Amino acid sequence: MAKEIRVNVDNVQHLPDNWKKCIGTGRLGLALQQEYLDHLKTVQQEIGFSYIRGHGLLHDDVGIYREMEIDGEIRPFYNFTYIDRIFDSFLDLGLKPFVEIGFMPKLLASDSQTIFAWEGNVTPPKDYFKWEKLISKVTRHFIERYGEEEVLTWPFEIWNEPNLVNFWKGADKEEYFKLYKVTVQAIKSVNKAIQVGGPAICGGSDEWITDFLAFCKRENVPVDFVSRHAYTSRQPHKVTADYYYQELAVPDKMLEEFSVVRQLIKESDYPQLPFHITEYNTSYSPINPVHDTALNAAYLAKILSQGGDYVDSFSYWTFSDIFEELDVPKSQFHGGFGLMGLGHVRKPAYHLFTFFNQLGNKLLYRDEEIIVTEREDGSIALIVWNLVMEKGEKHDKDIVLQLPFPNGSYFLSSQSVSEKHANPWKTWQQMGRPRFPLKSQVEMLKKSAIPYFESEQLVVSEEELTLHLTLTKNEVKLIELIKVKDDSATYPGLDDHLIDSY
Amino acid sequence: MAKEIRVNVDNVQHLPDNWKKCIGTGRLGLALQQEYLDHLKTVQQEIGFSYIRGHGLLHDDVGIYREMEIDGEIRPFYNFTYIDRIFDSFLDLGLKPFVEIGFMPKLLASDSQTIFAWEGNVTPPKDYFKWEKLISKVTRHFIERYGEEEVLTWPFEIWNEPNLVNFWKGADKEEYFKLYKVTVQAIKSVNKAIQVGGPAICGGSDEWITDFLAFCKRENVPVDFVSRHAYTSRQPHKVTADYYYQELAVPDKMLEEFSVVRQLIKESDYPQLPFHITEYNTSYSPINPVHDTALNAAYLAKILSQGGDYVDSFSYWTFSDIFEELDVPKSQFHGGFGLMGLGHVRKPAYHLFTFFNQLGNKLLYRDEEIIVTEREDGSIALIVWNLVMEKGEKHDKDIVLQLPFPNGSYFLSSQSVSEKHANPWKTWQQMGRPRFPLKSQVEMLKKSAIPYFESEQLVVSEEELTLHLTLTKNEVKLIELIKVKDDSATYPGLDDHLIDSY
Amino acid sequence: MAKEIRVNVDNVQHLPDNWKKCIGTGRLGLALQQEYLDHLKTVQQEIGFSYIRGHGLLHDDVGIYREMEIDGEIRPFYNFTYIDRIFDSFLDLGLKPFVEIGFMPKLLASDSQTIFAWEGNVTPPKDYFKWEKLISKVTRHFIERYGEEEVLTWPFEIWNEPNLVNFWKGADKEEYFKLYKVTVQAIKSVNKAIQVGGPAICGGSDEWITDFLAFCKRENVPVDFVSRHAYTSRQPHKVTADYYYQELAVPDKMLEEFSVVRQLIKESDYPQLPFHITEYNTSYSPINPVHDTALNAAYLAKILSQGGDYVDSFSYWTFSDIFEELDVPKSQFHGGFGLMGLGHVRKPAYHLFTFFNQLGNKLLYRDEEIIVTEREDGSIALIVWNLVMEKGEKHDKDIVLQLPFPNGSYFLSSQSVSEKHANPWKTWQQMGRPRFPLKSQVEMLKKSAIPYFESEQLVVSEEELTLHLTLTKNEVKLIELIKVKDDSATYPGLDDHLIDSY
Amino acid sequence: MAKEIRVNVDNVQHLPDNWKKCIGTGRLGLALQQEYLDHLKTVQQEIGFSYIRGHGLLHDDVGIYREMEIDGEIRPFYNFTYIDRIFDSFLDLGLKPFVEIGFMPKLLASDSQTIFAWEGNVTPPKDYFKWEKLISKVTRHFIERYGEEEVLTWPFEIWNEPNLVNFWKGADKEEYFKLYKVTVQAIKSVNKAIQVGGPAICGGSDEWITDFLAFCKRENVPVDFVSRHAYTSRQPHKVTADYYYQELAVPDKMLEEFSVVRQLIKESDYPQLPFHITEYNTSYSPINPVHDTALNAAYLAKILSQGGDYVDSFSYWTFSDIFEELDVPKSQFHGGFGLMGLGHVRKPAYHLFTFFNQLGNKLLYRDEEIIVTEREDGSIALIVWNLVMEKGEKHDKDIVLQLPFPNGSYFLSSQSVSEKHANPWKTWQQMGRPRFPLKSQVEMLKKSAIPYFESEQLVVSEEELTLHLTLTKNEVKLIELIKVKDDSATYPGLDDHLIDSY
Repeated sequence: MAKEIRVNVDNVQHLPDNWKKCIGTGRLGLALQQEYLDHLKTVQQEIGFSYIRGHGLLHDDVGIYREMEIDGEIRPFYNFTYIDRIFDSFLDLGLKPFVEIGFMPKLLASDSQTIFAWEGNVTPPKDYFKWEKLISKVTRHFIERYGEEEVLTWPFEIWNEPNLVNFWKGADKEEYFKLYKVTVQAIKSVNKAIQVGGPAICGGSDEWITDFLAFCKRENVPVDFVSRHAYTSRQPHKVTADYYYQELAVPDKMLEEFSVVRQLIKESDYPQLPFHITEYNTSYSPINPVHDTALNAAYLAKILSQGGDYVDSFSYWTFSDIFEELDVPKSQFHGGFGLMGLGHVRKPAYHLFTFFNQLGNKLLYRDEEIIVTEREDGSIALIVWNLVMEKGEKHDKDIVLQLPFPNGSYFLSSQSVSEKHANPWKTWQQMGRPRFPLKSQVEMLKKSAIPYFESEQLVVSEEELTLHLTLTKNEVKLIELIKVKDDSATYPGLDDHLIDSY
Repeated sequence: MAKEIRVNVDNVQHLPDNWKKCIGTGRLGLALQQEYLDHLKTVQQEIGFSYIRGHGLLHDDVGIYREMEIDGEIRPFYNFTYIDRIFDSFLDLGLKPFVEIGFMPKLLASDSQTIFAWEGNVTPPKDYFKWEKLISKVTRHFIERYGEEEVLTWPFEIWNEPNLVNFWKGADKEEYFKLYKVTVQAIKSVNKAIQVGGPAICGGSDEWITDFLAFCKRENVPVDFVSRHAYTSRQPHKVTADYYYQELAVPDKMLEEFSVVRQLIKESDYPQLPFHITEYNTSYSPINPVHDTALNAAYLAKILSQGGDYVDSFSYWTFSDIFEELDVPKSQFHGGFGLMGLGHVRKPAYHLFTFFNQLGNKLLYRDEEIIVTEREDGSIALIVWNLVMEKGEKHDKDIVLQLPFPNGSYFLSSQSVSEKHANPWKTWQQMGRPRFPLKSQVEMLKKSAIPYFESEQLVVSEEELTLHLTLTKNEVKLIELIKVKDDSATYPGLDDHLIDSY
Repeated sequence: MAKEIRVNVDNVQHLPDNWKKCIGTGRLGLALQQEYLDHLKTVQQEIGFSYIRGHGLLHDDVGIYREMEIDGEIRPFYNFTYIDRIFDSFLDLGLKPFVEIGFMPKLLASDSQTIFAWEGNVTPPKDYFKWEKLISKVTRHFIERYGEEEVLTWPFEIWNEPNLVNFWKGADKEEYFKLYKVTVQAIKSVNKAIQVGGPAICGGSDEWITDFLAFCKRENVPVDFVSRHAYTSRQPHKVTADYYYQELAVPDKMLEEFSVVRQLIKESDYPQLPFHITEYNTSYSPINPVHDTALNAAYLAKILSQGGDYVDSFSYWTFSDIFEELDVPKSQFHGGFGLMGLGHVRKPAYHLFTFFNQLGNKLLYRDEEIIVTEREDGSIALIVWNLVMEKGEKHDKDIVLQLPFPNGSYFLSSQSVSEKHANPWKTWQQMGRPRFPLKSQVEMLKKSAIPYFESEQLVVSEEELTLHLTLTKNEVKLIELIKVKDDSATYPGLDDHLIDSY
Repeated sequence: MAKEIRVNVDNVQHLPDNWKKCIGTGRLGLALQQEYLDHLKTVQQEIGFSYIRGHGLLHDDVGIYREMEIDGEIRPFYNFTYIDRIFDSFLDLGLKPFVEIGFMPKLLASDSQTIFAWEGNVTPPKDYFKWEKLISKVTRHFIERYGEEEVLTWPFEIWNEPNLVNFWKGADKEEYFKLYKVTVQAIKSVNKAIQVGGPAICGGSDEWITDFLAFCKRENVPVDFVSRHAYTSRQPHKVTADYYYQELAVPDKMLEEFSVVRQLIKESDYPQLPFHITEYNTSYSPINPVHDTALNAAYLAKILSQGGDYVDSFSYWTFSDIFEELDVPKSQFHGGFGLMGLGHVRKPAYHLFTFFNQLGNKLLYRDEEIIVTEREDGSIALIVWNLVMEKGEKHDKDIVLQLPFPNGSYFLSSQSVSEKHANPWKTWQQMGRPRFPLKSQVEMLKKSAIPYFESEQLVVSEEELTLHLTLTKNEVKLIELIKVKDDSATYPGLDDHLIDSY
């Protein structure tokens, strides 16, 4: 039986677009690549995020920190050749850096522990004085190149997930606080108004938030925002050479985490601090096939719909499958985080974001599976989804939506992604899962990745619009309703029936 | 009940691609326009015709023939500023001119009769000597700019539809022969090897063909090819300020015309002459809505499939709705000839051409509603269509195709256009037929114009492939079948069922 | 002997950029062309005007006004297909329309008098009621498509040069006032806040200004700005089939005209009205070779430098040689108005505009032949020119410029155009004045059209900068002086002399 | 006193374009970068090499060779994700790979010795069986993706400079022969017709050539071409953190090396083998400032002019400063090999190549400092240079060239690079050698990098052309002479003197 929804339009709220404030990226060094930039250009044209955040600003492939021997003495050398090119590219695409300070340049590292195929060093500096100088040099360079006005809009987040032993040696909290303090002092020594924050933890140890803010208060260390990550996958139940398989918690689990941390902040000495989710996704693994599925889009719909109620920004990890944390991608569909797959193939979750980009900022109605908005021009845009985490095919959903509405004719269009449509992962399976597809196969995958489109003309006659919505398993559908300005009467003698077959 | 087709692969023929040898265009002066060139660029990328033919080489907007008064004497002046720009553009896009000599520059016209909103003069030259000089100057200029080798590949066709009184004053056959003779002599005086031909008639007076060849023989006038047009629409039964409504004859009517003229040529003194259909379409009116419909695609399918059996080239009239014969287009969908509509919106017939472009050159099977081919790499490409010229909705068609085929797994993809899909004309109606749509409406029309895509994996197990094909009214479907090179076994431990919901 | 200039920096003024507020174009219908838009795109990237103004909004090639017969009755039909495409293109390039209302659609014309090869009708409407309806329909359409906020920034100027008999039948002043009144009422009936103005006269009859403003006052007709044109060429002393030859008055003549009219406005009932020069150039003829010369650049330098003192905008006529008033251009260099010549060849005057685009908005010094400015970053940009209207080669000029200046090292760059450099007209003469140059010749002309570049490092040691400037005949030179931030010391052991030959 | 040259045109030879057969590149992994591809696209548009050769096909950043553990067993995994993208890019740009087999994947290396900042492993395989399998897999993949016809046009060169201890462990010749044999067998096992060769030595040990060919003969190992490198710099006399300073031998030294090796081949058992110089330049160091100078262009002129007499191809090392052998470039001008500098700034040597690209293939005359050719259309193109390896400024050179020539008017254009013009290195010095220039500084460097252009019209009256050529220090000048087709007479009444100031 169909679920019935009757929208009460007396209670219109403002819908923030925090979901598009920031987007995640593989390590910054990848931003030199052409295909990476091609993906990002399309993402910006069709979605248009405001900030971009990724690891590896100080990693040795970007190559900022070097040393030279001059007359027998070792002196630091700061090389901005690549980071200038990278940040120039971001700004040209309308993206500001959400700066993440890390990882440790090999020459400054106190130990050899690294993370990822690309070997990001995760140990504290062996010499905090040299580190402080590096940070202030980098900060000053940004201001010299991009101007103070610009750089003051960039948040600087200190390190990444220091509460995990593989991201920060020993997950040593006190050492992190020391790093935070020294780094923030270096940044603020260049310009006090630059925004700094942390602790950039992954979930599971929210006491770090409380301790971090207490530390800042106690030591009088500046803090301008709080950051954390959120993933809803459990430990893998199977790991192969190619894939991680994990179960997911329900989407509400993530919203609950957003809420809990917001509450911690409110109860802290800094109740007004902005709170940024600087990474989120279903699985935290770059080789979990869930990222390639329609499920991922249907799953994330509620997060995009409601996440902005709790956090100032939440940054999907990541925009593209151009990514190397577990080595060079080994197949066309390898379970990468990307909205955009290799070869510029849009994945289902990509369309979820373009659909949200069509919503208006007047929120008319919202629940577990639908969000209804009005746009500035008075048209309606709604997204409805049918998340099915169980196996099997029979999971259609019917919804009847009723909305008080002016009489008249309306143009209704819908676009949808589902198991059947805009599902290049499925098409790729049918092709035999080619690891390194031919150009012609990639072209076919692109064709398979376009949302299903339908349109009709609706007449509203009794001041009420009724929409019968049917969704298949894991379908996400965007519906737009626009008042028809009918020109038909301006064609005197118009008669389609005079065309053969009509 | 489904029609059954059993393909006998013992009888493979070569399938020529004469359908893509040439494409028609609105008058050449329009080729200065940006949107025109944008359409043409896309057409060439996705279809890739070899030649382009349009009216108006000598019309006053291209402006080749002028006169100046020098010391009281009137002298001809030949201005190549625009034609150089136009032909440069064509050649840059991989298109050679199929040169049509006409219409008459006002300064050389013997009378004031014109055709079209843009007033092409259709009268004989008032001074054949000046005309001859003009033709030789133009021909010589082409060789100077583009080189002899290039220009020798361009056919030169003399005039357009001289058998109609509105295209040639009085439809005067003898005067046409005179024009032909003088023009051909002028061209050949520059270079004997340039190919010339005529009589470029529209249908309905094929005695012109016979008379024309007899004239050439009798007067020893060179002729290197024969040309004619073909349209299958009857006289309009209703004409409004916006539209012509006409009935169509069946597609076989057109093929029959191709065949009849080919026979006439074979029986003439020039039995080996190439025969070019330099224009064809359903309706000859640039404001007949049939051109915007799915019917037009389904109708033309058989022509594209079989036309090459009879003629050396047949040139669809025209590639774009950028066209002004009946004035500036007055609406987004105005019944224009174009494969591509205003605003870069692909019409159903556009896709028919891209579908044919996917066929191989080994013809396995062909009948009234299907063409099955093999491509160089061994894959199969077939097009199937369901032309329905009657009204009403219930006209689905079922076909069962059986083909001897090697055992194995195959990737099958299909793309289709129909009344329901890739039908922007219908979507535009739902929008209220906006004459001058907003940019956002044009974007929506583009989304509506994408063929419906499906794919699956098929297993052939008994050396025979069986396809069950179902088509809705006026659907045209491309199916591609490619042997799967299965990489699945290279992913050890692969198990989709370990993903939630799969 | 060198002229000595000592700049007193105590008296810094603001330099307005009124010279780049508006640019002229050939008739709007040409804006459909690809090459036109290519030129305009480059102009906007390298100069960046704010508005664009051209004739022919209502001319029959744009095709807005049509009539259809419906049931025996003639009804107006408003066709916005082309004007939408044109204005969309302008806005995409960052240009707003400076709307010029004119000329008369043939179907509304009271008589057959036309102007230009493209036959713009210059007669009053035969039916002012239909005219009024046309104007209000067009205005309303602009608002519907582009929004009220946008259209309120567009000035609407009524007609063009009604004080000339060839632009307005009989140069009938009273009839113009009538047209103005009816047109303005039509526009304001749609939205009162739209800015309207006139009388758009050419020079030589400034009493029209006074009379026009008196008329507006007397009849209580709205007027939001005053407009006029300015050209400094005399009557032609020779006219050939290809060229007009005219003498020029000195540049001060034009500035004086600006000033006189500004004074007339100040003394009128509307002393605060904005004053726009909606066309200016040396010669008013589109086939005067002066437009192709270095002289034109040197001549206009003073106008660009000082014109903004008198007028709110002055609009160079025109940006491109894509222009048809005296027919399709008959040669590569035909004396057209354009900054950009056919084939995307920049003419000397083009560079004058790009040079002015490098100036800062702090005016340090200005006289007959130099303008010195400071930019926001503290760097200096100056333009110096050597206008020589006499024949002969020996006309070099020496200037010594002294400027109080902080000690330090400076990077000085200069770019210049002159008879010798960036003079494609001269190169074209050497080629034999090819009317229809080959692509390879156009490429060569582009190479010849690049300004001469030089650079050096200057050291200022006694708080005073001294520049010795030498200019050849009709040279215009841009000099930029930027403080050196010297990294040389960061290369330990640097020694160029260890390179062979250095 | 001027040198006099009198050309005898009785002795016209064919001039091969072996100088543009191949170009060198930094390691293949860099070809993923956007700026790299931007440079390469321009190089191909303006020069158009046929092949590209670089190190690192098998290096771990391209990532072809990997291993996975499956059920406790280690299996090789071949990842073609990146190499497909790289070779696709090359082929899209009209470049075929000149395949260099190397260096050693870490997982197959017998030892840890590496070269370059990017740590290419230079040791023999630890398991020749796995190596052989890798090579055959890679070769087979190329054929599967690009087709046999294409891959048969790609030379496969085995390793790089094995005669140097830093490129091949121990410079062990016997081990190299073993590697060669195994590798060639692997390649030929896939397709016998693939061309293979070596020994890819750097200069200084030409006995390797002889020994290598003797080895092939003795062991009956296929060899299809011989390859070697050539650099003319001596050992560095100073090395700083930023630069190497080295003296150069004269250019003839390089030509002599070409000649000597050609002779060795002729005297071997394989006298007909093609001989490819797969790398050459002045200095072999990627941080020698000579590469940025005008000297480098003047020096290489003779090599480009005469090299093709001795070798089948010679491949300039390298096209771009996007290069990392000695780490990420540390400054805008860092002495990199590139024809194109960072930020898309063309260096003097870049223009040398574009100049040679303008030569015809009929060689009229050639000596130490000039090459004179005739092009297909009968025009003349010559390059003249003034190599000065001594210090000081006074080194102008005068040449008088006399050439039997038809009477007539000629358009002469010249473009030149020298110490003064098209020398962005000098301009950058004047700017203070900014390591990381601002965008505005890069724009200025681009302006400074354009060759100096001049043109004139010459009249030849006594069947002899006389050109007086003056060159400044290290100037390289291209002169083109094209017959004037004079249109001037077609402008009746033409009179430039009627223009003010002319």
